[in-house]
Amino acid sequence: MYLEKINNTGDIKKIPAEHLNVLSEEIREFLIEKISHTGGHLGSNLGVVELTLALHLELNLPKDEIIWDVGHQSYTHKVLTGRKEGFDTLRMYHGMSGFPKRKESECDAFNTGHSSTSISAGLGLVKARDLAGEKRTIVSVIGDGSLTGGLAFEALNNAGKLDTNFIIILNDNKMSISENVGGIPKYLNSIRTSEGYLDLKDDVYNKIVKTPAGDSIVRNIRRAKNSLKSLYLPGMMFEEMGIVYIGPINGHDIDAMRTAIRKAKRINRAVMIHVITEKGKGYEPAIRHPARFHGTGPFDIETGLPKKQSAVSWTNVFSTVMVKLGARNPRVCAITAAMPDGTGLKRFLNAYPERFFDVGIAEEHAVTFAAGLAAGGMIPVVAIYSSFLQRAYDQIIHDVCLQQLPVVFAVDRAGIVGNDGETHQGIFDLAFLSGIPGMTVMAPKNLWEFSDMLKFAVDFDAPISIRYPRGAVYEGLEEFRSEIKLGTAEWIYREEEIALFAVGSMVETAEAVRKKLDEKGHKASLINARFVSPIDKESIREAMRCHKLIVTLEEGVRSGGYGEKVLDFINSEKMENPETDVKCLIISLPDGYVEHGDCNSLKIQCGIDADSVMEKILNTI
Amino acid sequence: MYLEKINNTGDIKKIPAEHLNVLSEEIREFLIEKISHTGGHLGSNLGVVELTLALHLELNLPKDEIIWDVGHQSYTHKVLTGRKEGFDTLRMYHGMSGFPKRKESECDAFNTGHSSTSISAGLGLVKARDLAGEKRTIVSVIGDGSLTGGLAFEALNNAGKLDTNFIIILNDNKMSISENVGGIPKYLNSIRTSEGYLDLKDDVYNKIVKTPAGDSIVRNIRRAKNSLKSLYLPGMMFEEMGIVYIGPINGHDIDAMRTAIRKAKRINRAVMIHVITEKGKGYEPAIRHPARFHGTGPFDIETGLPKKQSAVSWTNVFSTVMVKLGARNPRVCAITAAMPDGTGLKRFLNAYPERFFDVGIAEEHAVTFAAGLAAGGMIPVVAIYSSFLQRAYDQIIHDVCLQQLPVVFAVDRAGIVGNDGETHQGIFDLAFLSGIPGMTVMAPKNLWEFSDMLKFAVDFDAPISIRYPRGAVYEGLEEFRSEIKLGTAEWIYREEEIALFAVGSMVETAEAVRKKLDEKGHKASLINARFVSPIDKESIREAMRCHKLIVTLEEGVRSGGYGEKVLDFINSEKMENPETDVKCLIISLPDGYVEHGDCNSLKIQCGIDADSVMEKILNTI
Repeated sequence: MYLEKINNTGDIKKIPAEHLNVLSEEIREFLIEKISHTGGHLGSNLGVVELTLALHLELNLPKDEIIWDVGHQSYTHKVLTGRKEGFDTLRMYHGMSGFPKRKESECDAFNTGHSSTSISAGLGLVKARDLAGEKRTIVSVIGDGSLTGGLAFEALNNAGKLDTNFIIILNDNKMSISENVGGIPKYLNSIRTSEGYLDLKDDVYNKIVKTPAGDSIVRNIRRAKNSLKSLYLPGMMFEEMGIVYIGPINGHDIDAMRTAIRKAKRINRAVMIHVITEKGKGYEPAIRHPARFHGTGPFDIETGLPKKQSAVSWTNVFSTVMVKLGARNPRVCAITAAMPDGTGLKRFLNAYPERFFDVGIAEEHAVTFAAGLAAGGMIPVVAIYSSFLQRAYDQIIHDVCLQQLPVVFAVDRAGIVGNDGETHQGIFDLAFLSGIPGMTVMAPKNLWEFSDMLKFAVDFDAPISIRYPRGAVYEGLEEFRSEIKLGTAEWIYREEEIALFAVGSMVETAEAVRKKLDEKGHKASLINARFVSPIDKESIREAMRCHKLIVTLEEGVRSGGYGEKVLDFINSEKMENPETDVKCLIISLPDGYVEHGDCNSLKIQCGIDADSVMEKILNTI
Repeated sequence: MYLEKINNTGDIKKIPAEHLNVLSEEIREFLIEKISHTGGHLGSNLGVVELTLALHLELNLPKDEIIWDVGHQSYTHKVLTGRKEGFDTLRMYHGMSGFPKRKESECDAFNTGHSSTSISAGLGLVKARDLAGEKRTIVSVIGDGSLTGGLAFEALNNAGKLDTNFIIILNDNKMSISENVGGIPKYLNSIRTSEGYLDLKDDVYNKIVKTPAGDSIVRNIRRAKNSLKSLYLPGMMFEEMGIVYIGPINGHDIDAMRTAIRKAKRINRAVMIHVITEKGKGYEPAIRHPARFHGTGPFDIETGLPKKQSAVSWTNVFSTVMVKLGARNPRVCAITAAMPDGTGLKRFLNAYPERFFDVGIAEEHAVTFAAGLAAGGMIPVVAIYSSFLQRAYDQIIHDVCLQQLPVVFAVDRAGIVGNDGETHQGIFDLAFLSGIPGMTVMAPKNLWEFSDMLKFAVDFDAPISIRYPRGAVYEGLEEFRSEIKLGTAEWIYREEEIALFAVGSMVETAEAVRKKLDEKGHKASLINARFVSPIDKESIREAMRCHKLIVTLEEGVRSGGYGEKVLDFINSEKMENPETDVKCLIISLPDGYVEHGDCNSLKIQCGIDADSVMEKILNTI
């Protein structure tokens, strides 16, 4: 058991080289065993075991720095930096994060979570190192999927002019979460399938030399290099950008990678080492089902099956309704940014492949492309997780809303998402979307309303968004299903004293609060806001007439959210009618980031669970 | 005079081919003459006269569609589509826009303004065309500068898999607004300086064929193509992404471009036509001073000099102070996204070239790169215009604020910017920045405070932003210069009755309002907010004690802005002390976009000029 000897950063260097492959297998077993209990990212971590060992052997951490793009593949790195015990509480409330965190270890050079940031951040660390006159090695590890993101390209464009060492490891497993799309992945594939590895360059010359008078040809070509440049080589595209290319290299061959890293360290330029790895390596179910084992819940190691059947999720509902909408209207298109599985659009893809677009990890393009489709007469539905949609803020304003194009935004994973933690919580969408002029923002209370809202959105003929949470769909309040009307809330229970205006997921909470209030002798109306923009002024006016307290409830940040909009309106109304005497209490997430953990604990911490809300209301009245 | 004959879309086709060059010169004279009076974008428009003619000759507008990236180069397109008269009111209030606008002409296929969107939008139009079974040609015209933006790359990655016609014109003038940076521009330069034009491919083979036994070599290479691929050709990088490359072509040779466009139309793939143009072509001052003539005010045609000397601008102050801060602290770095002139950072570049970074048109990278610099111990100051900073919203949250890295954001062109219109107004920054947990947001009232705030920001050691307007810096209220303290407003005049809490540029307005109120017998305190996040709760409490009305004033959207934050706090205070009886009036931009025009007219239209504010206050009390 070599893994027993790995307890602190640097311990890896004490393991004899001939036993590293055994250690690799032990780490794989460890990860599979731990993740089968806690859930977590499996496939990507099984793929980079040897790569991580090679990096730790050739670098001196924490002096040298590794930036893990996205960061979900940093588990072996955590094992090697004294965090083995953390895997018992992986992604749990107050447990170890599933991503690199500067607060967690001095060996985590830069926090990640979203895709395609590592080369930019690495370039920053490189320039800071040089300006300080220090010597250390900085390595960014980026997947081929992340390379489809524009940010990575912007960074490569800047790396091309570097005259100092910076190592980029291209961890090429032919996948994002699902299969990759586009010209770059096709190009990488052409490298992978070309003959030979490292020494193809010589190989090209060799072939020519073998032909009659080949020697003089080679001389001739070399002489004419300025105009002819050179023969086609793997990685030419990166070379053309000014980046030295080494590869492709077998990402499970520790020695080969160590040699490449040593070679790369000697070059005073940006160097890309192209490493081919297998996602899920060493665990058959993860190889067979890469998307399911990208991020997984607890599972049975033997069969690979999930330990518990998950309930019907909001995503499932979206998936089903989209297929129906696609059948009903041939103008409906669906767009995902590399998440056909995660967004549930795979069924739409199967039903209407010509109207389905996976654009790669490219949220900005997804939105501007949708705007183009809409300008051409289509009705694109763009399904992007809330925290990733932040990336397309400008495109939503500039390309969609300014032109009032009929793009539908399906904002999945909105609100608290749980284990992935602060980089993935969908807490800003209500604020940033509802602050954009010309954008309508909706949130459904339950399964049926979600379906109704999707239909409404597709017929809406202007920019519109629907936000819905991660996890099981709410199936309560089924009997309340009035027609969706623009900017109109739904009155569920009509009482006096307290009026609860709840947004989306908070309708379920508000219903629980209402019952608790009733037990304490307080009567509360329950209003399902439905629209966060535009707000339903008439319903607020109505509520002001016969309630002492209006409470707004939303699972999002306070600044720019629903509550502040309602308060602003109430304030204007009061100035018109100074005798009105209604109080307004805003329930929202507190000002700060929400860490990882189970959603229930996080909601209690944030004070948006039914008991906390109840307490705040009782304190107010 | 051929230009006289150009009055409607399609008229260009009636001009005999041999006279097109004369027409080109007439258009140039027309543009120079008109822009010398109105101001506008000159250099880029002089560069694309022949390109625009070639496109209009080979396409059928409005059936065929052209998307102009950024759109500031669409003047000749406007001339050719019946909008010659519009140039008398170019960029004026209620006059013709300086950018393509679908509302303005059916020949404007897609609105632009920000960089790098055209390929994404074009792809959307292409897919919509194909899904509808229609036949028409879609062309995106993108500059080499815009190609450094990640969005363009994401789109190219998607274009690479296209199996239908889509034409991308790469308008390569070797410039963004200033000179381009990075690997891609270097690569384009290598194409430009390589021997020959269109037929370089044959040229390569010819060279080999001339060598002994060259024939067999060429055969051999062609046979071995799958493994060797092919010899280096111009545009190989794009070919590798799956895009057919044609070029480079002289962008002032109408015939050559027409031939290329005809050729491109026959290809069922994405085709890039690489066209080399000269920015400012035909007008010496514009060639000599490309940055100044990118966007210019009215100028004297003879000398090229501006018609009036502009006053000291906020940008000038930033420029000066940055040089001082760079001298004082060797950790201070400066970052621009392709705007060393526009942001005023050129002086910093000259003083501290090793600490200055122009990253290209790549706002996302600028911010994540800054985060990397900060993680490495530097203090980066990122200077980006407000409306472009929208592009880096996620990077500000995810890479800077989550890690609480000391990045300073210098948010230039914040508020109403005037002639460039709705795509360029800086109206969202206060809302989206102040809604991010851990981001401090400041706005200075005048020259001296701006300087003080910059010093404060550089020493702050956490994420912080300063927003300041376009145009002349305010030099009033010089005598008020109390020390900057985190989250503390500055009381300028202390009265009772009305309290004016003004943000940045609105302090000047509020001072005018205060005087007007005084004339009407109303006393008003004037408080310079200084911090939009965190707000100064103590000052608001203080104001609540002895005023009947609190008025907030900001040049930004209402939702998520300063006013709503203040109101939210006042509301909380009132719930604690129900006897408090203070009203709150929020002055902000209305819910909507702000068109182009002079700033004064726009401010009146938006109701944030002194008279409008005054009226709202009088209506309230």
